[in-house]
Amino acid sequence: MINIGIIGYGYWGPNLVRNFFAAKDCCVKLVADARTERLQQLGIAFPCISGVRDADNIIYNSDIDAVVIATPVSTHFALARKAIAEGKHVLLEKPMASSVEEAEMLINLAEQKGVLLMVDHTFLYTGAVQKMKQLVEEHELGNIKYLDSTRINLGLFQSDINVLWDLAPHDISILNYIVDERPYSVNATGITHTNNSIENIAYLTINYPSGFIAHFNCSWTSPVKVRMMLIGGDQKMILYNDLEPTEKVKVYDTGYSYSNDEEKKQVLVDYRTGDIHVPKLTTTEALLGMANDFIACVQKKKQPVSSCQLGLDVVRILEASSKSIKHNGREVILEATTVPANHNGHEVLI
Amino acid sequence: MINIGIIGYGYWGPNLVRNFFAAKDCCVKLVADARTERLQQLGIAFPCISGVRDADNIIYNSDIDAVVIATPVSTHFALARKAIAEGKHVLLEKPMASSVEEAEMLINLAEQKGVLLMVDHTFLYTGAVQKMKQLVEEHELGNIKYLDSTRINLGLFQSDINVLWDLAPHDISILNYIVDERPYSVNATGITHTNNSIENIAYLTINYPSGFIAHFNCSWTSPVKVRMMLIGGDQKMILYNDLEPTEKVKVYDTGYSYSNDEEKKQVLVDYRTGDIHVPKLTTTEALLGMANDFIACVQKKKQPVSSCQLGLDVVRILEASSKSIKHNGREVILEATTVPANHNGHEVLI
Amino acid sequence: MINIGIIGYGYWGPNLVRNFFAAKDCCVKLVADARTERLQQLGIAFPCISGVRDADNIIYNSDIDAVVIATPVSTHFALARKAIAEGKHVLLEKPMASSVEEAEMLINLAEQKGVLLMVDHTFLYTGAVQKMKQLVEEHELGNIKYLDSTRINLGLFQSDINVLWDLAPHDISILNYIVDERPYSVNATGITHTNNSIENIAYLTINYPSGFIAHFNCSWTSPVKVRMMLIGGDQKMILYNDLEPTEKVKVYDTGYSYSNDEEKKQVLVDYRTGDIHVPKLTTTEALLGMANDFIACVQKKKQPVSSCQLGLDVVRILEASSKSIKHNGREVILEATTVPANHNGHEVLI
Amino acid sequence: MINIGIIGYGYWGPNLVRNFFAAKDCCVKLVADARTERLQQLGIAFPCISGVRDADNIIYNSDIDAVVIATPVSTHFALARKAIAEGKHVLLEKPMASSVEEAEMLINLAEQKGVLLMVDHTFLYTGAVQKMKQLVEEHELGNIKYLDSTRINLGLFQSDINVLWDLAPHDISILNYIVDERPYSVNATGITHTNNSIENIAYLTINYPSGFIAHFNCSWTSPVKVRMMLIGGDQKMILYNDLEPTEKVKVYDTGYSYSNDEEKKQVLVDYRTGDIHVPKLTTTEALLGMANDFIACVQKKKQPVSSCQLGLDVVRILEASSKSIKHNGREVILEATTVPANHNGHEVLI
Repeated sequence: MINIGIIGYGYWGPNLVRNFFAAKDCCVKLVADARTERLQQLGIAFPCISGVRDADNIIYNSDIDAVVIATPVSTHFALARKAIAEGKHVLLEKPMASSVEEAEMLINLAEQKGVLLMVDHTFLYTGAVQKMKQLVEEHELGNIKYLDSTRINLGLFQSDINVLWDLAPHDISILNYIVDERPYSVNATGITHTNNSIENIAYLTINYPSGFIAHFNCSWTSPVKVRMMLIGGDQKMILYNDLEPTEKVKVYDTGYSYSNDEEKKQVLVDYRTGDIHVPKLTTTEALLGMANDFIACVQKKKQPVSSCQLGLDVVRILEASSKSIKHNGREVILEATTVPANHNGHEVLI
Repeated sequence: MINIGIIGYGYWGPNLVRNFFAAKDCCVKLVADARTERLQQLGIAFPCISGVRDADNIIYNSDIDAVVIATPVSTHFALARKAIAEGKHVLLEKPMASSVEEAEMLINLAEQKGVLLMVDHTFLYTGAVQKMKQLVEEHELGNIKYLDSTRINLGLFQSDINVLWDLAPHDISILNYIVDERPYSVNATGITHTNNSIENIAYLTINYPSGFIAHFNCSWTSPVKVRMMLIGGDQKMILYNDLEPTEKVKVYDTGYSYSNDEEKKQVLVDYRTGDIHVPKLTTTEALLGMANDFIACVQKKKQPVSSCQLGLDVVRILEASSKSIKHNGREVILEATTVPANHNGHEVLI
Repeated sequence: MINIGIIGYGYWGPNLVRNFFAAKDCCVKLVADARTERLQQLGIAFPCISGVRDADNIIYNSDIDAVVIATPVSTHFALARKAIAEGKHVLLEKPMASSVEEAEMLINLAEQKGVLLMVDHTFLYTGAVQKMKQLVEEHELGNIKYLDSTRINLGLFQSDINVLWDLAPHDISILNYIVDERPYSVNATGITHTNNSIENIAYLTINYPSGFIAHFNCSWTSPVKVRMMLIGGDQKMILYNDLEPTEKVKVYDTGYSYSNDEEKKQVLVDYRTGDIHVPKLTTTEALLGMANDFIACVQKKKQPVSSCQLGLDVVRILEASSKSIKHNGREVILEATTVPANHNGHEVLI
Repeated sequence: MINIGIIGYGYWGPNLVRNFFAAKDCCVKLVADARTERLQQLGIAFPCISGVRDADNIIYNSDIDAVVIATPVSTHFALARKAIAEGKHVLLEKPMASSVEEAEMLINLAEQKGVLLMVDHTFLYTGAVQKMKQLVEEHELGNIKYLDSTRINLGLFQSDINVLWDLAPHDISILNYIVDERPYSVNATGITHTNNSIENIAYLTINYPSGFIAHFNCSWTSPVKVRMMLIGGDQKMILYNDLEPTEKVKVYDTGYSYSNDEEKKQVLVDYRTGDIHVPKLTTTEALLGMANDFIACVQKKKQPVSSCQLGLDVVRILEASSKSIKHNGREVILEATTVPANHNGHEVLI
C-alpha cells in the first residue's frame, strides 16, 4: 500500500484525488492547498481525506510514500526537489518544469535518490493514443510523414505560461510517444492580445532529419473547441478527433507515391483513396490508467509509459519554441548532430 | 457585347466557359488549348464555340475584346503581356503571376494601355465572403485580432508550384479583401515528401503592425478535406466552414477583455460566450458573379472587387513565403515602414 | 431540513444520491437496495450514508420525510402507496406507474394525505427544454404544427417494459410540458426481435384536435445513438439535438404559408428559409434542478414543474400505445370529447 | 442507336436530357413540354435538341424508339399506354402510376407488345445502394431485422400527391431492392397542414412475416434536410447517410443475441459493439447508370435493375398507405397469404 499526498487542489487536483482514490494499492492520505475555500471543497467531496494548508506537511511527513504535484508550473521544481530529497516518489503535472535545466536536475536527483519521477501526460493512457501507437508500431501507416495538431478553444487564459506551454504538452507528448525519431529543430510564431507578453495564439513547427514534420496550432481565443490531429503515412493516414464521443480514431486507407518522369523532367505523384476503418477503443478512464501506472512503477521499480525522459523532451521543445517566438520565428536547433546535411545552417539559433 | 477568348481548357477552363456563356453582355468566341483531347471535350460540351490550338489565334484576333487566361502560372506573364499589348482586357487566373516583378509589370502595362487587368479570386464573390466582409466592415466583431485558415485535402499535386502557391491564394485573397490593415512580414515553414523540392505541406504566418495575426495551413496530403477559417474579434468571432452545404458562416457572440490587477501585477482576462447566429447567405454561383463583374468593369471602366492590386498583394505574400521557407522560417519583411518599434529588427530578411 | 430515503440503488440511484447530496435543505439519510453488491458500491462512494436491504426500513422510519423511489416500474405502485400512507412525500422515477389506474390511485391518495407526489421527468429541468418552452410560450414559432422525436441507441434492453415505456417518457414529458393542447388519440406499431413479446423497436403517433401531430421513433437496436427532436411552427422551427455538447437548440427562421388559387382549384404553398439562431443555454445539471424543485415544493407546498398530473398524462399515452400495438396499430382514443368532427369514428378503439 | 424522346422538361427533365445525352448507343431526338419557357430553357442548354409542345409529336413519331416520361404522376398512365401501344419502349419516372390497377395494365400491355417498360428508381444505381445490396446478399449483416428511413426537408410541396407518394418511393425502392422477403401489410399515419387534404407529414410502417419491420418518416416541413437510413441485422448494422459527401455507408460491427434464463423466466439479451467500416463507393452518376441500363435492356431484351415489377411493388405499398391513412392508421393487408398465424386478423383491412 502506497501512501499518497497531493499538493494543489485547483482545477486538476480533484480529478487526481478521485482517481488515486479509485486506484489499486494506494491510499490518498493528505491534500495540501493554501486556499481555505479549496480545502472546504475537499471536505465536501472527500470527507475522509485530510486537508492541510502547507505542502511541507506532506513533503516532510514520514507516512507519505509518494507526492503528487498539481500546482502552477513555476513551483514544480522547488516542490519536487524537496520531495525527492526526502526520498519521496514524485508525480508531476505537465509540463514537468519551467526549463530543461530544471527538468534535468530533477531527473538526476531522482536517480541519485532511487525514487520514481514521473510526469502526468494523461493522454498517453487513452484508448485513442494507445491504438495510434499500435498502428504506427505495426507499420500500418507505412512511413509516417507528418503530424498536424489543432487544439483550440475559448478560455482559461493562464497568467504564468503561454498557450503553447499550456496546451501543446498534450500533443507533443503524443508525438513523442508515437514517433521514435528525434527532432532536430523547431520554429514558432505567436501573438499576445492581452497586453501581458503571454501569447494566447501560437504556432509551432517541429523538424525531423527524415523529412517528417509536426505542426501545432494552439489558441485560447477560438469560438469553437477543436481537438484534432492528423497523422499521415505514405500507406495510410489517421484522423484523431478527441471530441467525437466514440469514433475518435479513423484510419484512412489513403496514400500516395511518386515516380520520376525522365522525359518531362518531372516527378509524377499518384494518390489513392480507399476504405475507412474506425477501430473500437478501450474506454477506461485515462487518468485512472495513469494513476495505476504510477503505483505499479513505484512498486516494481520500473519506468512508466509517461516517463520523465518523455516529459523532459516535451520541455525541451517548449523551451525552444519560446526562444523561436522571441526571435521572430527563427529556427532553433534542438540537436545539432542530426541537422540534415543540405540544411541552411547559418540561419539557425543554437 | 464583349467578345471573349479563353486560353486554357484544363481543370478550371470548362467552369470559365460555362459561366461566361451564362454571363450578361458577352459572348465566348474562341477557346484555345494545345491539347487535341481538350478541344474534343470542348466540342462535346459547347458545340457552338470554336476551339483553336494556338493562343495567338485569340490574342491577335481583332474580334476579341477580352482574354481570359487559365493556363499554368508560369505562362501567365508572357500571355498577358502580349494580350495587353494588343489592347485586350485581361482576366488572369490566380495567382496572377510568378513574382511581384511580373505582376507589377503587367499592372503598369495595363494602365498604360488603358485596359482592364483583373484576377479571378472567385471566393470574393461567394455569399459567405460577402457576408463576412459586411460583418467586419460594420464592426460587428469589434477589433479583429486573428484569422486562422486550414485548407487541406488529398490530391492534385502540382508539378510547377508548391502547396502555398496552389491553395493559399484563396484564403489570402479573402484576408486581403476583409482586412484593411497591411501586413509587414511573413514566416513560413514547409516540407516536400515527393522528392521534387515542391512543398506539399506548408504553414504560413502573416504579421501585422496592430498585433493582428493570420495563419494558413495548407496540404495536398490530408486524408480528409477541410476548408475552415476562423476570424476572431474581441466582440464576436466567425467560423467559416466552406464544406457546410448551407450553414457556412456562424457568428459567435463570444469575446474577451482584459484588465490590470495592480496588486498581483497580473493581467486578468475575462471571456464570455453567448448565442450563435447563422446568417442566410446568397447562393448565386460565385464564378458567375466574377464573370459579370469583369464584363461590367470592362464596360464601365471601373475597378472590380477582385482587383489586380489585391492580386498583386497576394503574390507579394506568396513570394515572401517562398523566401521564408528557403531560409528555414525566418521572418521576411514585406513593408519595412510598418515594422513595430519594439521589433527584433536584426532577425529579419528584407 | 428534509430527511430523504432513496429506494433502489441501480442504474439511476447513484445519480439521485449524488444530486440530493448536493441539493439544498435536505439530507440523504438512508438508501435501500436488496442487493449486497449495490450496498457495497454505496459504501465506497458515499461512506457517510447508511444502506439498508429492506425498503420498509425507509418507509416506516419516522425520521424520514420524503422517499425517492428508483426501482423497476412494476414495483412503483406498491412502494409509493405504502410511503404515502405513512405520510411521506414521494418522488417517483419515470414512468410513474404501470397503468393509468395505478397512477390515479396514487395521486388521489397523496391528495388525501396532503403530501407531495412528484415524478422525476429530468429533461424538463434542462436548459434546452426550458428554452424551448419559453420560445413556444412567447409564440416565437407561430402556431406549432408538429413534434418529431427520434431516441435510438444500442443496448440496455429492459426485461419488464418495452422500448416505448423505457425511452418515450423523456420525449412525451417534453411534449406535454411544451404543448398545452391535449391529444385525443394515439397509434403505435412495433416489433420484438428478442422472443419475449417486449418490443425493442416501436413507433408512436399522437393526434391532436387542431391538426398538431407528434411522432416518436424509439429503438434499443440502433448502431448509432440519436436523440433528436424537431418542433415545427408555421413561423419558425426548432432542431433539438441533445447529443450536441453546446449547440443543442437551433431555431430556424423557416416557415410556410398557403393560399387558395381559385383558378387552378389548388392550394399554393409558399415557404421561406432564413437565418438560424442558436441560443445560449443554462448549463446547471438538470437532475440537481429536479432535486431542488422537489425539496422546495415539499417546503412550500406547491406543485413542481414535473408534476404528477404531467406524469399521469405520460402514462395515459403509454398505456394507449400498448393497446394500439396489440391491435395492430389501430387508433386508440384518449379523450373522446375532443375527437374532430370529421373523424372516421367507427375505426377507433376506446 | 436508340432514338429517344423525352416528355416533360420540368424539375427532373433536364437531368434526364443531360444523362441520356451522355449515355451510350442512344440519341435524344426530341423533348416535349407544353410550357414555352421550358422549351426556351432547353434551347439554351441543348441547342441541338428539338423541342415540341405536344407529347404526341414524340409518341406518334416513327423515328423514336423509346419514350421517357417525366410528367406529373397522374398523367403517366395515359401517356405510357399510348406510347406502348405505338410499340415504343417506355421509361417512367417514379412512382410509375397512380394505382396498382394502372401499373398492372401498363405491365401487361408492355408484355403483349414486347417492349421494355422500366421505372426510374435512380437510387438503385448509386454506389451506396449497390454496396448495401452486396453486403446484405453476402449475409454480412446476419439476419436483417429492420430498416428505418428518414427523408425530410423543407419545400417543394406537391399539389397532386402527398409526401409519401413524393418522397417514399426512393426509400421503398431501396427496401424492395435490398430485401427479398415480401411484406404482408402496412400502417400509415399523417397530417395535412395546408388545407388541401394532401399530407405534408406522414409515417409508414411495413410489416413482414419474419418479424422484419420497415419504417419511413417523410416530411416537406422540416427545417433541416435529413436523408438517413438504418438497416439492422443481428450481426452487423448499416448507417446510410446520403448527405455525407463521401462516407455515405458505415457498417457497424454491432449485434445482439438472446437466450432464455429458465430460472428467472426471462429472456436475456446480450449486445456487442465493435469496429466500424466505411467502404469506398463507386462514384459514377446514378442517373447515367440508369440511362445506360435502360438502353442496354432495350438492346438486349433483358430486365433492368429498376424493373417495372419493383416499380409495381412500390405503388402497391403507396396505395395501401393511403388507405391506412384514410382509416386512421389501421393495418392494411397487402398479401393475405403471408399474414402470420398468431396475427390479430379481425383488425385489418383487405
